[in-house]
Amino acid sequence: MTPDTPSDEAIEARYAQLDREAEEGGYHLNPDREFTRNLVRGLLVNEQRYGYPSCPCRASLGKRDEDRDIICPCDYRDPDLDEYDACYCALYVSGAVLSGEVAIRSIPERRPPRSERKKQGALQQAAGSIQQLAYPVWRCRVCGYLCARESPPHICPVCKATKDRFERFL
Amino acid sequence: MTPDTPSDEAIEARYAQLDREAEEGGYHLNPDREFTRNLVRGLLVNEQRYGYPSCPCRASLGKRDEDRDIICPCDYRDPDLDEYDACYCALYVSGAVLSGEVAIRSIPERRPPRSERKKQGALQQAAGSIQQLAYPVWRCRVCGYLCARESPPHICPVCKATKDRFERFL
Amino acid sequence: MTPDTPSDEAIEARYAQLDREAEEGGYHLNPDREFTRNLVRGLLVNEQRYGYPSCPCRASLGKRDEDRDIICPCDYRDPDLDEYDACYCALYVSGAVLSGEVAIRSIPERRPPRSERKKQGALQQAAGSIQQLAYPVWRCRVCGYLCARESPPHICPVCKATKDRFERFL
Repeated sequence: MTPDTPSDEAIEARYAQLDREAEEGGYHLNPDREFTRNLVRGLLVNEQRYGYPSCPCRASLGKRDEDRDIICPCDYRDPDLDEYDACYCALYVSGAVLSGEVAIRSIPERRPPRSERKKQGALQQAAGSIQQLAYPVWRCRVCGYLCARESPPHICPVCKATKDRFERFL
Repeated sequence: MTPDTPSDEAIEARYAQLDREAEEGGYHLNPDREFTRNLVRGLLVNEQRYGYPSCPCRASLGKRDEDRDIICPCDYRDPDLDEYDACYCALYVSGAVLSGEVAIRSIPERRPPRSERKKQGALQQAAGSIQQLAYPVWRCRVCGYLCARESPPHICPVCKATKDRFERFL
Repeated sequence: MTPDTPSDEAIEARYAQLDREAEEGGYHLNPDREFTRNLVRGLLVNEQRYGYPSCPCRASLGKRDEDRDIICPCDYRDPDLDEYDACYCALYVSGAVLSGEVAIRSIPERRPPRSERKKQGALQQAAGSIQQLAYPVWRCRVCGYLCARESPPHICPVCKATKDRFERFL
């Protein structure tokens, strides 16, 4: 067994952990067990190779500083769940996919090319220094939870209220 | 069995889920099991009728946009827990009620009448646009958790620190 | 058995609860079970004496208002974990200590003396009133979680992303 071949036990253990953490936070893994198992295997392979579980559907550069945005769950998961009901890999899916109301479609790559990622990082630091908000802040009307993202989460991670219970706060 | 008669199994399952989520977030269901079971039944009846579990102690209009503030847990639960040790229905109670230190009293309706709710929504949107805060922001001194509400939560949902470990942040 | 002698059952129950809450929030108790058990006993003794579980390694004044910052977990746990891989008591330790990469060192007392604590409280209230931030606000790039602390948490309590997935937000 090479270092790149995770054991069945390791795959099952990580699968169970990701599933529990997803459900606790209002997320869902793809219900297709074989498909999902293969993605989890890919995560473990990347973790062994690079030291972090980068996205199994994207090419890693092997440098954490360059790959940070695609360490799973990637920075693009939540916008993709909002727009396409699944993340780029379809490891995470929306409740609508889970219940069969919506089918998984092809998802275009949202991650900017490397040259633009470097520019954006510099711009964001500049924006931060002049106190402009990089994202809107949402407030759960039920429990007061605050988060900064393009749109509110599907479920409040604190009190489980649904997306439409959030209001724009800042 | 009509669609409005939830099965005992459905009631017990929802009861267990609400109880778990409440305890994880620092809330408590009313310890009177029969009383609470009836409220859970009412929630399920409303969910079947309207498509969302609106408050079993208030009249629903049957339009999610109009009833959003009374989908359980309602927008008024936490202020009522702070002031009266229970929500309007007494589905949720404070730790002081749970331990028997405080008895449940009659709770006046905090929800504004429909005409005022519409005015408030418009005002709040205007306030948001000029960057005024609709609620104070509280910070847990232990873990840094931030939330925006009239007063801090009884227990920090992240680290379980008590209410008096919160400080005004904004 | 005096009120100051907690039973073995009480110690084990609190130990299990603290351990579960720690792991859920991305924290770790010291893996030395006997050492940790003694600290938990100290917490229970203080809880019986004073009505709150103040730090077992510091002298309590017996007034909640004065001891609030050292109710366990104390206000200084997270900065000490960041800088020294353990809290002042070594009840909480970092992942690096847990995995054996780092050994626990002596930790200097970070809590200011009483006279300075009183001054700081007054200053902070003044700062709050002119809308200056007492702490930077960090944003989890994965889920949008916001918290205000000296540095980001080791693990996002909502989505379990690692510290380097956080960015400065305010």
